[in-house]
Amino acid sequence: MPGVFQDFALATVFVSDAQYNRNIHFDSSPQAVRLYLLYNHWAFKVLLYFFIMVNLSLAIFEEPAVFLLPLWATMLVELLCLIVFTARLVHYAKVIPPVKFWKDPKNICIIAVLTLTLVDMIIYGSLEAAKIYCVRWSRVLRPLLLVNVTEGRQLRRAFRSIRNALPQIFYVFLLFMFSLLVFSLMALKLLGKRNLKNIEGYPYFTDYLEIVFQLYVLVTTANSPDVMMPAYNAGSLFTIFFILYILINTYIFMSVFLAVVYNSYKKYLKEEIRQLVRAKRYKMARAFDVLQEQKEGCSQPVLTQASWNHIVRQVRPDITDAHRDLLWSVCDDKNQGVIGKVAFVQLADLLNIEVITLKSRPHPLQNLFPTIYLSAPSRLICRLVQHRGFVIAFDLIILVNAVFIGLDEENPLISNSEWGFLALYMLEILLKLYVFEPRSFFSRHIMVTFTNSRVLEIQDLAQNMFRIIINTLIRIGPAILTFGQLIVVVYYVFAIVGMELFKNKVKFFDNSTHPEHAYCGNPLLKGHSFAQLGYCKNNFNNVVSSFILLVELTVVNQCDGFASVTHVSARIFFVLFHIVVVIVIINIFVAFVLEAFFVEYSVDKSQLQTSLEKKIEELELAVAQYVTLTTEPSQDQDIQVRSSRQESRSQQGGQTV
Amino acid sequence: MPGVFQDFALATVFVSDAQYNRNIHFDSSPQAVRLYLLYNHWAFKVLLYFFIMVNLSLAIFEEPAVFLLPLWATMLVELLCLIVFTARLVHYAKVIPPVKFWKDPKNICIIAVLTLTLVDMIIYGSLEAAKIYCVRWSRVLRPLLLVNVTEGRQLRRAFRSIRNALPQIFYVFLLFMFSLLVFSLMALKLLGKRNLKNIEGYPYFTDYLEIVFQLYVLVTTANSPDVMMPAYNAGSLFTIFFILYILINTYIFMSVFLAVVYNSYKKYLKEEIRQLVRAKRYKMARAFDVLQEQKEGCSQPVLTQASWNHIVRQVRPDITDAHRDLLWSVCDDKNQGVIGKVAFVQLADLLNIEVITLKSRPHPLQNLFPTIYLSAPSRLICRLVQHRGFVIAFDLIILVNAVFIGLDEENPLISNSEWGFLALYMLEILLKLYVFEPRSFFSRHIMVTFTNSRVLEIQDLAQNMFRIIINTLIRIGPAILTFGQLIVVVYYVFAIVGMELFKNKVKFFDNSTHPEHAYCGNPLLKGHSFAQLGYCKNNFNNVVSSFILLVELTVVNQCDGFASVTHVSARIFFVLFHIVVVIVIINIFVAFVLEAFFVEYSVDKSQLQTSLEKKIEELELAVAQYVTLTTEPSQDQDIQVRSSRQESRSQQGGQTV
Repeated sequence: MPGVFQDFALATVFVSDAQYNRNIHFDSSPQAVRLYLLYNHWAFKVLLYFFIMVNLSLAIFEEPAVFLLPLWATMLVELLCLIVFTARLVHYAKVIPPVKFWKDPKNICIIAVLTLTLVDMIIYGSLEAAKIYCVRWSRVLRPLLLVNVTEGRQLRRAFRSIRNALPQIFYVFLLFMFSLLVFSLMALKLLGKRNLKNIEGYPYFTDYLEIVFQLYVLVTTANSPDVMMPAYNAGSLFTIFFILYILINTYIFMSVFLAVVYNSYKKYLKEEIRQLVRAKRYKMARAFDVLQEQKEGCSQPVLTQASWNHIVRQVRPDITDAHRDLLWSVCDDKNQGVIGKVAFVQLADLLNIEVITLKSRPHPLQNLFPTIYLSAPSRLICRLVQHRGFVIAFDLIILVNAVFIGLDEENPLISNSEWGFLALYMLEILLKLYVFEPRSFFSRHIMVTFTNSRVLEIQDLAQNMFRIIINTLIRIGPAILTFGQLIVVVYYVFAIVGMELFKNKVKFFDNSTHPEHAYCGNPLLKGHSFAQLGYCKNNFNNVVSSFILLVELTVVNQCDGFASVTHVSARIFFVLFHIVVVIVIINIFVAFVLEAFFVEYSVDKSQLQTSLEKKIEELELAVAQYVTLTTEPSQDQDIQVRSSRQESRSQQGGQTV
Repeated sequence: MPGVFQDFALATVFVSDAQYNRNIHFDSSPQAVRLYLLYNHWAFKVLLYFFIMVNLSLAIFEEPAVFLLPLWATMLVELLCLIVFTARLVHYAKVIPPVKFWKDPKNICIIAVLTLTLVDMIIYGSLEAAKIYCVRWSRVLRPLLLVNVTEGRQLRRAFRSIRNALPQIFYVFLLFMFSLLVFSLMALKLLGKRNLKNIEGYPYFTDYLEIVFQLYVLVTTANSPDVMMPAYNAGSLFTIFFILYILINTYIFMSVFLAVVYNSYKKYLKEEIRQLVRAKRYKMARAFDVLQEQKEGCSQPVLTQASWNHIVRQVRPDITDAHRDLLWSVCDDKNQGVIGKVAFVQLADLLNIEVITLKSRPHPLQNLFPTIYLSAPSRLICRLVQHRGFVIAFDLIILVNAVFIGLDEENPLISNSEWGFLALYMLEILLKLYVFEPRSFFSRHIMVTFTNSRVLEIQDLAQNMFRIIINTLIRIGPAILTFGQLIVVVYYVFAIVGMELFKNKVKFFDNSTHPEHAYCGNPLLKGHSFAQLGYCKNNFNNVVSSFILLVELTVVNQCDGFASVTHVSARIFFVLFHIVVVIVIINIFVAFVLEAFFVEYSVDKSQLQTSLEKKIEELELAVAQYVTLTTEPSQDQDIQVRSSRQESRSQQGGQTV
């Protein structure tokens, strides 16, 4: 029955899309489905990301380079990347209907980027051949590919979240600027006429724009207290102005920025989840439509257990028969042997709920090497590690270690002992991994005992708090990957622009006896604090040092050196960077950490009660066996931490989300 | 009828206590009530706070002093303060039953502070007379009076909120310290053996405790990027260590601190509100018990409209008859002429809801000088100011001003024109205040037009956003007073301790030609960056400069100078200050701003519907007249922004809170 086989294939794709929140409206013709399956193959995705990485890393080898390669080499590699991207795009175009393809802005964006890059390469190549100075402007577009490929879903969501917050951020920013300008005017009137000099001997607070910039930097706390000292030295009362300014602009406005970002982040999250749930239901409903049968005695079309089993086996070949039976009994609540559409739709979420069989599940090593793992010495090790004395022994080791740390570092015996201690700790973790089933080990066991035994004897409350915090930290783990990509995209653009603006303005000499070492190879920096503090290596001379400099600018915005070697307007670049990265992106990150903590905290309080858990209780189904229910983070759920939980709740409660 | 008069007096006190959330269990005997009324008199409160201020300001005149006064003078003033505080305490002891008095920890605390201060004064005075060196340690206790006087309710609440957050903060801090220690160990192993030198030529990252301190400071971003530069200069790969550290400790852990503080702040807020509501109900119920009558046909005791009117007139003599009738009709929902206990209990909240009669209320000047205000020239001014042209004219003035700001500052005509512009803006505000009723003017009118006309033409959304932000800023206004007190208490303690530890270690010379000017009068600072950057005035030589220095330390933690002139362990003082002020207090402040913003945002969305508004709609009672309903912030409601709203909701919904 090729028809039935195709039906199952199609239904499997729908269910799998729903499970992983893929939202591609592929053509449902058999060859398109086959192409779509190929499109989703992991090898192609890895290949794509590999070439995106290659494309981005080209900046390392292009002028200004870390390792300079000849132009033809980088051009050739870039051309290869472009070909790969085009092939992937053509593949995608074959999977989905043409109308949908041309309506999607991300495809148009990729095409534009590819075309513009090609044009730029041709122009640059020919001008370079004619020895005419030219800028490789299309390099700024490279990170756009990372955002616009089909797999960049999370990254796009992060950018959408930023875009949604932008109007509100803009209004707060206007108020903030208004306050900044008024304070600057006050500073000018208050201090401009007093002939004060700053530490470098220049007139202090006499130029309006200079004041605006200095007070803006004060918001980042980078020039505190230097910016205040000349006024303070002239009179203590002037500090009232600065304290007022810091209270309003550094503390209140920056908090309002965080509040606005957090608020719009949460609002947006809800909307996204609603859409995801809708898309998921739609996919599941389509899968059901493909597989449905008309049974006697049922007014509605239904799905038999056989078809259901077939689909689940296709989608999750790894789960056990017992687990699958459990899932079926959750779906087929009334034991009718068939399920309707509503019961089927919740399958995608049920599959995402991970059932850990804590006690009964054998250690993976036992599966792999049963004879060795169950041998007498191995059993002895297990008993030893599980013994209370093991924990106490390692607590003592930590104590000794703490004493050793405090002792004289010069003694080689003591300083080398650290390696011994580290080795012991590694041994402890390895032994525990050997003895305890890894998943249960990581899910809750070790984390608590780890911090518990190591720091203090802590009561229940503390353990609880530790678990919440550690779970928060674990929870934000995958999200940091998305934020990492986001940061790479923004940094890359700023790094490329920064390199064009500031390359070789500041030089670093490995050899500190070099005559130009003291002023970073730029006479303009003679006696400048930038050179005096030894910041020469903070430059835009290649993409690596640009990235490191941008990290430093994220933490503290120091840019006077670059304004000195180019033009005062270079500050615009740094202020812009501060607005984009610190005010927007870092605040989103903080908002994300806050939300992850609150979710972890509230879930811990209210006890996640899924229908699966209820079913397990109802059926009294080997309670000892199924102890922990955790939600496996699917590939899309790192930004929206609530999604899977809210989704499963929504599935339970009908239309509550 | 003296009995009835006393009853009314007692009931009035109960209602007024409930309205202002006073929670004093005074004796209900007539003379105790009279004493209690006296105790609550504003003059006594002002006097008390005046003497608290005097007592705190003594630090200005005591060694190390801003203006040195002889010892007998300050001692005498302090003795006077102690007498006033004792008198106030004795008064309080007469008001409440003795058992309650001795059970209250705040009374015990005040007695202890007063006794200890007296003891210290005697010891110090006699030792000083014998020329023996001695420390006035009881000065640290002074701010405790601010916390423990009956009126310091908000401040105590803020401290309780901090105390409640402490256990959770402590656990996060343990994890943070664990991470810090591990990173420090890694840094020592990674960088300690490489013979690197920092910018001052000292060995870099060779001492474990030094590394721990430097990495702790990196969390405050104060020493970024300096702490990283020697490693970065030695090899770019070392930056990975620092970037990882900044990500985990500066960004994630600091966000988790905020999350913990915010979370416990919110949880605590709910509990406080619940208690406040309970206390309020209890007070109102007692007032009802005093006034209740047994009417025919009513199974329950009731209150007549006459008694009710009497009470309301006593408690709020300022409200109009129409307003009082409106309140009565809300209470007496079924028009029975009498009300029961439940209806009476909500009075305290009803009185806190302010009804502004927008259109009908005449300008206060019209009441004071009707003939002048209603004269032809005055009417012309009103018409002119209300005209659209007035707004446009001032928009144009702003534009001209913006152009002038950008012009050459040296030109005296242009630089002096600023004063003209400022005068014009003041004129505009004065004119508007003359024309518009001040309360309606401030409540919403001016704030929107102010920013609206001044910055951009903004659509509805933006106006909305602006209103939310400005309301947030206005809403946190009174709370800043409480936080101000909180900060003063903490700063005062640190300033007193800091002065004992560091006084005269660093000296500032007004005359920059003084030979010791270059190294702040301390040879240990020769060539030190502290002196080079001109920080000499950042010292602990008197209480004012201590406070200013503590503000600077709040923003950026710079303390190397003080460790250099005393001992490396002086850093403990600064790290402690950072933990207390930045990690705890500033985070509570940020949490407060966040919560104020979210409340303002959600209230704006859900539309506050009080029973009063409903009643106004029901009765169609001069809808044009009663337009705005705002909740007047009662003296206790600055920390818990939701209280009055939640309370009125709880009163509506019975036992919902």
